[in-house]
Formats: sequence, C-alpha cells, structure tokens
Amino acid sequence: MTTSQKSIGVLGGLGPYAGLDLVHKIFDAIQGERDQDYLPLILFSFPADIPPRVEFLLGKTDDNPGYAMGELFIRLAQAGASVIGMPCNTAHSAPMLDVALDMLYKSGFKGQFVHMIEETGKYIKEHFPHARNVGVLCTQGAYAAKVFDSHFKKFDLNVLYPEAEGRDSLQKAISSPEYGIKAFSSPVTDLAQHSVAMQAKTLVDQNADLIILGCTELPLALTGNTFEGVPLLDPTRILAECLVMAFDPEKLKNK
Amino acid sequence: MTTSQKSIGVLGGLGPYAGLDLVHKIFDAIQGERDQDYLPLILFSFPADIPPRVEFLLGKTDDNPGYAMGELFIRLAQAGASVIGMPCNTAHSAPMLDVALDMLYKSGFKGQFVHMIEETGKYIKEHFPHARNVGVLCTQGAYAAKVFDSHFKKFDLNVLYPEAEGRDSLQKAISSPEYGIKAFSSPVTDLAQHSVAMQAKTLVDQNADLIILGCTELPLALTGNTFEGVPLLDPTRILAECLVMAFDPEKLKNK
Repeated sequence: MTTSQKSIGVLGGLGPYAGLDLVHKIFDAIQGERDQDYLPLILFSFPADIPPRVEFLLGKTDDNPGYAMGELFIRLAQAGASVIGMPCNTAHSAPMLDVALDMLYKSGFKGQFVHMIEETGKYIKEHFPHARNVGVLCTQGAYAAKVFDSHFKKFDLNVLYPEAEGRDSLQKAISSPEYGIKAFSSPVTDLAQHSVAMQAKTLVDQNADLIILGCTELPLALTGNTFEGVPLLDPTRILAECLVMAFDPEKLKNK
Repeated sequence: MTTSQKSIGVLGGLGPYAGLDLVHKIFDAIQGERDQDYLPLILFSFPADIPPRVEFLLGKTDDNPGYAMGELFIRLAQAGASVIGMPCNTAHSAPMLDVALDMLYKSGFKGQFVHMIEETGKYIKEHFPHARNVGVLCTQGAYAAKVFDSHFKKFDLNVLYPEAEGRDSLQKAISSPEYGIKAFSSPVTDLAQHSVAMQAKTLVDQNADLIILGCTELPLALTGNTFEGVPLLDPTRILAECLVMAFDPEKLKNK
C-alpha cells in the first residue's frame, strides 16, 4: 500500500454538521497552499447508529451510546486513524466515553484519543491563567454528567451554569424540532439565537471570566470571539488545533 | 458489529475543502431534523497521497494519480462505503479514473461509483431539455482530457470553453499560490473572482445555454444560481443529490 497508513480520525455524526465543522476547523488550522500540503483525515459520520446522548445521561433510556461510539472508534482506527477526536461535548461524559475508550484500547489501538474537554481546560490555563470562573453553556446531559466539572477541577477552575430554567431553555434551543439549532442550522432561528444569548447573559451576570460554548451546535448561534466583553471559547476549534498538533506539529498554522 | 455496514463514501482531498463542500451538500440534501435522521457517511481526505492531476493530464509528469485514487477507493470500500463519489471534475478524466475504478472493481467491490460528470449530463437532459450549448469552466487538465466532451456527447450536448488565454487565466484563478482559490478560499481574492467572472462572460458571449462550474473550487468564486441570466450548474450539488438518491431515495429532500 502506498497511501498514508496514519491519519487524523474524526468520529462525527454527533450531530452531522458538528462533525463537518470540526473537519473544517482542522483544515483551517493547517498551514497549506497546495492540496498536497494538507494532512490525511478520515471522518466517520454514523448518526443513526448512535442513540441519543442526552436521554441516556438523564436516565430516560438504558441504551448506552458508548457501545456504538466504541465500535466506530475501532472502525476508524482499522481504517487508518492514529489520532482521534470527537466533536461532541456531551459524548465526552464518562458513562459513555469510558465504555467507548475501553473498547478502543482493548482492540489494540496504539494511537491517541484527544479529549476535547481536557484540552479546553489546558487551553484556559495556558491562555487565560487568571481565569477562575468559567461559564459553561451545554446540554442537560453534559450538565447532569458533570463532565466539565470533573475535568476542570484539576485546573482549579470553578464552573458556572445557567439556572435550571435557563438550562432547559438552552436544551430546547439546541434540540427542539420546531426551532432548535440541530433542525435549523443555516440560518439559526431567531428564537434559538435569542435563547442562547439570554443564557450567556446570565453567565456574564454571574461574573464569568470566560464562556465556553460547550455544545458543538452553539458556535452557530453565538458567533464572534466575545459576548458582552467576555471571551467565548469554542472547544471544537481548540480540539482542531490539538489534533493537528498531535498528528504533525510542523503543520500547525499560527504556532 | 451493530453499526451500519453500508455507507456513502466520499473520496475527498482533491482539494480538501472540495471534499468538505460535497459532504456539506450531501447533508443539506437529506431530509433530517434529528441527528439520527442522517445517513451514514465516510470521508477519506488524503491530499498528499494523490499526485497533482492537472500536471499529469498535461503530460508534465508520468505519475498517474489514478493508482492512489484506486487504493483509496478500495480502503473506503473496506471501511464500509457502498456508494462512492469523488468531488473533483478533473479526477474524472479517463486516464486516471479508468485506472482507479479498475482497481476498485477488481478488489471485489459490489457497490456503486456515482460519476459526477455523467450525472451532470443526465441532470441537464432532465432539467434543461432544450439546452444545446453548454459552457464549461474547468482546469487545463480537464480541458486537455476532454472529460466533459466525452460524457456529454451521448446527451447530444455541444461543449463550449473559453479561448486558450482565458483557460490559462482560469487555471491561475484556481491554483495560483499567490491569489488562487485553492490557496485563498475564504474569502476568495478579488483577482480570482474577477478572472472567473471574465471567463464566464466569454461563455455567455458564445451563447451558452448553461454554464457548468466544472472545477470544485469555482462555486466559491461564482455564487448564485445564474450569471448574467444564464443558469450556473454546480456538479458537486448534483453529485450530492445523486449519492443520497443511490443510497436511500426516501431520504432525499425536495424529491
């Protein structure tokens, strides 16, 4: 075989456009002029095979999406992926991700899984060393699983969320079939945009030093680098740079 | 294994953003509200493994990109792709594609390769039955290999191109490292945009009934559905719909 045996691997489909957004950000993070300058990449987008994450984390179903994620990680690795990332914050919750990574490593995978939320914590320590209060906008599933809290604790960061009613309104802005971002992403509906901005505002009011767009649908609703002067962080962009860095640091743009 | 054994397969990397653009158009062509509504898809983007297509077709190198394309088709099929498309008009030229498809079918592939240029011809006959003169904007490689002429002949379509100097200026608008679309895609440079528009104008002057954006970089420079009243066709969009149709016709939006 003469084609590359190693590549960046993306487990997409959670949802489909978020997978695409990560691939876009990976290409944008590469220093390239000619086609041949770009790194090899494989995307698996198998949305129908992965049961709903939020419902599982909220205990509404016992169907753990981690098993399908694990099988797809293994298929990605068999296809040639050596550095793997997954653009879904909720899916990084331990009850799912632990199952999936256990399957991957037991299959003999010798490569690296780049953990988006862990990398976001590192990024904050490096780029915002004085930040203490980190506001997080995320799904009810990621909130219930405390995935941000558990990973940010070691970086000595205090995690803030909107109040219960606000979290519910945020979840609807993400997944409502009537107006949510998953159903209407280009353009995002005014109602979804307004709901997300309202919840970002409650984090500003809680004196957040930073706001994390902790669901891959949210950067579509809240564009720009700041919200009312508070820096907005997009974990997908951080993951994209970390994947390029892990695969070939020489290729990273803006090193 | 519980995850889907069949999927749409995209051979991207020719260039990287064109692969992404096809995947985006495939998702947009699917009727979906929830993540789980979308079809399974695998993208292989291995740009550095595929030698430059135009240089080969112009006889500047003997390094036939068809061999790497064939190997990547086989890897896509092994990973689970059953309906395969490739978003690069130039790469559909017979001296490359024949080699690649021969490798794929000899490997035992039982699925379908959806030919972008053939499908564009069919689309024209179906949607523009009175069209006779089809203007084509493409690379010097696709022009030299007469890939549009050979596939459109059977549909009784007359293919028009810009004059020699215009084709050269178009090639530069695509691939110049100083201002071409491959190097500067968001945003496209004014110079590249102007060059492409100038060549579209020469096709209008030749009384083209339609203009085909016959290089996957061109829809980035010439957006919109018409140019000076003449319909613009984007083969990537046509391919996206055909891939969804071939994989699961029930999922096609706007049937």
